[in-house]
Amino acid sequence: MEDCIFCKIINKEIKAATVYEDKHTYAFLDIRPASEKGGHTLVMPKKHYELITDIPDEEIKHLSLTLKKISSALLKFSQGLNILQNNKKIAGQYIKHIHFHLIPRFENDNITIEKWKANEYKNGEIEKIQNKIKLLF
Amino acid sequence: MEDCIFCKIINKEIKAATVYEDKHTYAFLDIRPASEKGGHTLVMPKKHYELITDIPDEEIKHLSLTLKKISSALLKFSQGLNILQNNKKIAGQYIKHIHFHLIPRFENDNITIEKWKANEYKNGEIEKIQNKIKLLF
Repeated sequence: MEDCIFCKIINKEIKAATVYEDKHTYAFLDIRPASEKGGHTLVMPKKHYELITDIPDEEIKHLSLTLKKISSALLKFSQGLNILQNNKKIAGQYIKHIHFHLIPRFENDNITIEKWKANEYKNGEIEKIQNKIKLLF
Repeated sequence: MEDCIFCKIINKEIKAATVYEDKHTYAFLDIRPASEKGGHTLVMPKKHYELITDIPDEEIKHLSLTLKKISSALLKFSQGLNILQNNKKIAGQYIKHIHFHLIPRFENDNITIEKWKANEYKNGEIEKIQNKIKLLF
């Protein structure tokens, strides 16, 4: 898609530190990494889709295999790995080409992911939400 | 697997707020949600695997379709969605049965995900890491 920086990287119009490429998927290092040591990798489909719900089934299957493959490489030199995918700006998606962040973790790396407050449901609320979601499939 | 709380939920030995189930995958609401409003959903394979790299290819493909399906339901009533998967304790994995956190997002929900500091690589470092990763496939 025109004006998509990730499409330009995939099409080699903009240079990036590519670590993996196949027919359907592409992976390169984020230039603003959460972890310099581990090389914060971005993994995405080559075709432009915005949200996880936009990717056709066959393509998300390819993407899942690439996620596994790159995770395997990253876990060979790291002590752990976070995989994060954000949908829409409010969730932290700034580039509208779906991408997964793969962030290798090391002791005392001071990276903040999942520092959310664990809340408690009020009485009956969990069943209400459960039933609401079940109706939406 | 014995002593795995998620296996017990999947086998209906422990009650949970299930939102989706098929032959290969299972989803229920985390009882300690990052978002009470949105119903923090956990999505996983029914079989016990610890890390993303442990799941057989056919199963991770099924899992990717379930992630898409549940994301679609959650995005019908939320304004955004984070998907997070943690591998190993250092990355925040406390239950050793692989699971994806699906966290619906709303304006001013004060949920903290991705508050990492964006770093910069020292000169030449990005190429070094890129080359290291490429050798690990």
